[in-house]
Amino acid sequence: MCKKIAIILFLALNYFSLFSQENKVIPAPKELSFNSSRFIVNNDFSVVVKAPATSRVYDAATRMLSRLKGRTSMFISQYKVFNDYPDPAMQIAVEKPGKNVLYEDESYRLTIDAKKIELKAVTDLGAIHGIETLLQLLQNDDNSYYFPGCTIQDSPRFPWRGLLIDVGRHFMPVDLIKHNIDGMVAVKMNVLHLHLTEDQGFRIESKAFPKLHQLGSEGQFFTQEQIKDIIAYADARGIRVIPEFDMPGHTSSWFVGYPELASGNGNYSLEDKFGILLPTMNPAKESTYQFLDTFLREMTALFPDEYFHIGGDENNGKEWDANPSIQEFKALNNLADNQALQAYFNKRILDILTKYGKKMMGWDDIMLPQLPKNIVIQSWRKDGLVASAKNGFPVVLSKGYYIDLAQPAEFHYKVDPLPDSIALSDEQKKLILGGEATMWSEIVTEETIDSRLWPRTGAIAERLWSPASCKNVTSMYKRLDRLGIQLEELGLTHEKNGDMILRRLTGGSDIGPLKTFVDVLEPIKFYHRVSTKEVRYTTHSPFSRVVDAAKPDAKVARDFNTLVDTFMKSNNNSKMAGELKGYLKRWANNHQFLELTIHENPSLREIESLSSDLAEISRLGIQALVFLKTNRHSKDGWRQNSLGQIKQAAKSRGQVEIAVIKGIRQLVENVKQ
Amino acid sequence: MCKKIAIILFLALNYFSLFSQENKVIPAPKELSFNSSRFIVNNDFSVVVKAPATSRVYDAATRMLSRLKGRTSMFISQYKVFNDYPDPAMQIAVEKPGKNVLYEDESYRLTIDAKKIELKAVTDLGAIHGIETLLQLLQNDDNSYYFPGCTIQDSPRFPWRGLLIDVGRHFMPVDLIKHNIDGMVAVKMNVLHLHLTEDQGFRIESKAFPKLHQLGSEGQFFTQEQIKDIIAYADARGIRVIPEFDMPGHTSSWFVGYPELASGNGNYSLEDKFGILLPTMNPAKESTYQFLDTFLREMTALFPDEYFHIGGDENNGKEWDANPSIQEFKALNNLADNQALQAYFNKRILDILTKYGKKMMGWDDIMLPQLPKNIVIQSWRKDGLVASAKNGFPVVLSKGYYIDLAQPAEFHYKVDPLPDSIALSDEQKKLILGGEATMWSEIVTEETIDSRLWPRTGAIAERLWSPASCKNVTSMYKRLDRLGIQLEELGLTHEKNGDMILRRLTGGSDIGPLKTFVDVLEPIKFYHRVSTKEVRYTTHSPFSRVVDAAKPDAKVARDFNTLVDTFMKSNNNSKMAGELKGYLKRWANNHQFLELTIHENPSLREIESLSSDLAEISRLGIQALVFLKTNRHSKDGWRQNSLGQIKQAAKSRGQVEIAVIKGIRQLVENVKQ
Repeated sequence: MCKKIAIILFLALNYFSLFSQENKVIPAPKELSFNSSRFIVNNDFSVVVKAPATSRVYDAATRMLSRLKGRTSMFISQYKVFNDYPDPAMQIAVEKPGKNVLYEDESYRLTIDAKKIELKAVTDLGAIHGIETLLQLLQNDDNSYYFPGCTIQDSPRFPWRGLLIDVGRHFMPVDLIKHNIDGMVAVKMNVLHLHLTEDQGFRIESKAFPKLHQLGSEGQFFTQEQIKDIIAYADARGIRVIPEFDMPGHTSSWFVGYPELASGNGNYSLEDKFGILLPTMNPAKESTYQFLDTFLREMTALFPDEYFHIGGDENNGKEWDANPSIQEFKALNNLADNQALQAYFNKRILDILTKYGKKMMGWDDIMLPQLPKNIVIQSWRKDGLVASAKNGFPVVLSKGYYIDLAQPAEFHYKVDPLPDSIALSDEQKKLILGGEATMWSEIVTEETIDSRLWPRTGAIAERLWSPASCKNVTSMYKRLDRLGIQLEELGLTHEKNGDMILRRLTGGSDIGPLKTFVDVLEPIKFYHRVSTKEVRYTTHSPFSRVVDAAKPDAKVARDFNTLVDTFMKSNNNSKMAGELKGYLKRWANNHQFLELTIHENPSLREIESLSSDLAEISRLGIQALVFLKTNRHSKDGWRQNSLGQIKQAAKSRGQVEIAVIKGIRQLVENVKQ
Repeated sequence: MCKKIAIILFLALNYFSLFSQENKVIPAPKELSFNSSRFIVNNDFSVVVKAPATSRVYDAATRMLSRLKGRTSMFISQYKVFNDYPDPAMQIAVEKPGKNVLYEDESYRLTIDAKKIELKAVTDLGAIHGIETLLQLLQNDDNSYYFPGCTIQDSPRFPWRGLLIDVGRHFMPVDLIKHNIDGMVAVKMNVLHLHLTEDQGFRIESKAFPKLHQLGSEGQFFTQEQIKDIIAYADARGIRVIPEFDMPGHTSSWFVGYPELASGNGNYSLEDKFGILLPTMNPAKESTYQFLDTFLREMTALFPDEYFHIGGDENNGKEWDANPSIQEFKALNNLADNQALQAYFNKRILDILTKYGKKMMGWDDIMLPQLPKNIVIQSWRKDGLVASAKNGFPVVLSKGYYIDLAQPAEFHYKVDPLPDSIALSDEQKKLILGGEATMWSEIVTEETIDSRLWPRTGAIAERLWSPASCKNVTSMYKRLDRLGIQLEELGLTHEKNGDMILRRLTGGSDIGPLKTFVDVLEPIKFYHRVSTKEVRYTTHSPFSRVVDAAKPDAKVARDFNTLVDTFMKSNNNSKMAGELKGYLKRWANNHQFLELTIHENPSLREIESLSSDLAEISRLGIQALVFLKTNRHSKDGWRQNSLGQIKQAAKSRGQVEIAVIKGIRQLVENVKQ
């Protein structure tokens, strides 16, 4: 009897351990259940793509084998993709080629057992998602790489899951865009929004009006061939490309070559400063619309997507107010104010876009109830989403997804386009198409942009793909960290460029102490970095400082702060105390080494006192651990003094801040007085 | 009197320290003298380019400011390049735009004092070289970045300083080529040789014969637009681009689409294996020359350089021997052997190229005394250089510059195209145009190629640019290491991709122990890596193993081995002994940590015993240090046993070898018995 129970218990435990597989996939699939089998990967891994074997699936399978090979270092051939093959490792079957449009079926079903892997999807777009899921499932034990047995049924919560890349303020080259497309595919995003024109640069070749890119870009623009190449690359991966030509504001770069488009007089030059600037198109001249008709005819032909973004944000109207003929035009046309004038302008643009077969999209600044309801609104302002839906407009959320602002991924993760509490009818809720992460580029270059985007955008991708109930932040970060490593195989530089910047800063001497320090720093958040009197950034400022190497969501700091939290709930767990002490000792000792590096490199001077402060407060943390361990009361004033020092250390310098302040403060605060 | 002497002594010492500036520039300039002044860099750094301000100089100055900004993190603007400006930091004056051709004047003169920087050159090509020299001179003290006062007069020893990149066996994308062009500029190379076609891939779009790239490349080829882009990019930087279309051998990829060109019958398919393969063009059919005429008309129009490379190497003649009609053709035309037949083929190609205004270039396999003397020979075989020059051919050396073979940079550095001992007349010596590093791509991918090329190609660049007397290996390595850091700012991935591969291998867990290990490893050298029975490489093998992360010229190992050398000459210097012990302890302890990582990752299993061997012999090294310190004799058999263990450890595993064997062996060998 006892033995029987023991066996049952053994089986039950085993069952538990076998089936207690954690989900490693990000975005989390809709339905996922593991079984006890494993599909073990060997060198002969082959794939059969059943008819209709579209080139999307065929190529995606080839790329998958290539990545599998890279991760395992096994002699797998990426050319083992066939229409027919005996006993393949994997079978992919799609019903039809997908249309790369809004609302296309993106679902897939993936089943894995010891004998085979089966991927089924309605369209090849779904199959691409299934392949990414499979790659994220790859695991290993001591001896082999394997896929855990499971059944996954998956489809997205929202049909519009986008990433905006601003190539206007700082240009980004083709290869970088392609690597980011691959990153998007890895997290099942499906819309690349290219913000192509800005005050600081006009980033696309126009054959109709060549002075746009010739005089408006300092030579940094996409040729039309390159744009076609990007679109083809994206399409092969199930990503739509939506261009944005921001107007009537944010248009300085247009006016360098074509000042006649502007509302003001005089010479326009390329802006190197950021913000809401004066130059604005003249909506009162018929020639403006003639120009835009020709220009948009050219651009709508270039971009195949149904949607076309005209920006429309941040027009401060000052150039309009200052121009008598525009005032006259307003009066003549009964346009009460600048908002009405912009609505008129938008209507004219809408007519042009409609003529060329496009649906219009714009920022929520343009949302006026009287506009036609097939315009898609992108909401970046408070209440813009709800207001748009209430007015009957399809809407895409970006407020809360400003990934450039170096806020924690957790912050973005908690922003839901459609929270339970939303005050919309069921009909109105259907208008919420999804969201877009926005990567504005005031303070990034091609060296640093990936480190702001990845893996963090994965958190937004999960919010837009996975069920609303998927909310565990700890799990999200764990999967995000894992994703971060995997994304490197796509050519993304989020991880590797950090050390490169440190090597440059130390001029080649050992980066060890600097790295230890930078690992617990984060760039200051929100708009504090750009809107500061300390530094006046322009397009040609250096972005090669410590703050540019520091990463949002600093992992080491996150791990430390979490450990403090757990430790505090643990009743003085001595193993955890030891771990915490290990961290703190390292930081307490680091400054003596880093100081030498700082004194060899003037560019590091700006973080000298911060490094010294980290050492100081780490010593306080160690003292706190001693007090906590012995349950002793601190000496008179120790806690108050310590908290004062911590407050001092919390002040940013060189636009970075110490990200372990929280954990150290928590230790100190818990010491009895 | 005494005081006077003291003052003089003080001044003399000061003088010495001020002027004892080391040369940091690679390739070393022809004439360089430092003075005691410093030009201190500030945020207002500006450049005046005097008329004729060619776009080459203007853009190079802009890029220079950008790099200066990146290195210093100072708020320097790259747009401060003017035709006229009051009191500029730097003045650049060139006499005329350079022609991007062989023998163009590349000299420059650079003078720096506390007030200004002056760069003068006959052509803008020379000015570009001067700018790179200036950037390498950048230094700093505690407080500021500065250029040391100096006068430099510089010009190249050889006019042909090339780098061959084989994009045939593994394709390399446009951006990678561009980064490498920038790397070449940094070390004053001036010829990019693109090896565009191979058995494994036809890597350029042909509009005349589209099946060449469509069926011969697996979709990995340069479009003609991209080639034009590369050529323009290179031209703006003073780099000539020479295409190679290897024929009649190495042509499998041509025959997939056009089997009628081949000497054999049957279906040709893209090769994935390497070596000297059978497929060879049919030189006996007139249609072959008709095809080549059309094809070469297209390609010669695309590449503006005067020279055009037709390969010509490694034709084993077997397909010719097996084809009766070719035998018949030989008999009919009195062609005694296959060499004569290939000479006939070459003569026909030469006629076509001449018609299209090109000079022919080929590997030394094609060198026959009866060929016209304006053909440039590229020598890759023993004695090819001398034989070519003796026969009156201009010649470029590549033997000894096979940078893909992972030999030490020192090896290449010691290969001089024109050593004192060369048995040539003065007239013949003039035929030696220079050399080309060759980066064949059997066992590299776009992830790893840079780590084989850089900074090591700098050693070859110095051999080709600097005076023959410049031979100090220690100085070369010191400058090469510094260059390695600087080259990262150009987008080259030689440094950063190593850690990326390690992260992938450990699946995201700490790479520390693995990195400590890989830092003392080198890939096995010469052809041992490819020609092995252990691994049969193909184009689709994985190149993501430890061996792919390991670097030739492993710096840590080099430093250790050098330190052992110095220590041995030092009479047991205790500081050095301490340093050596530090290294050895780290390696002795590393295996216990690395073992955990290895057991978590099957892909690391292949280096497990090597890691354990490193620990073992490091302990022997520590013991040796103790013996040496106390001047004691070792126990019976200790030395012999130890040397046996070291011999065992010296055996490569996973195609890597421990690069500190030499130093450890030296320690053990010096212990008294």
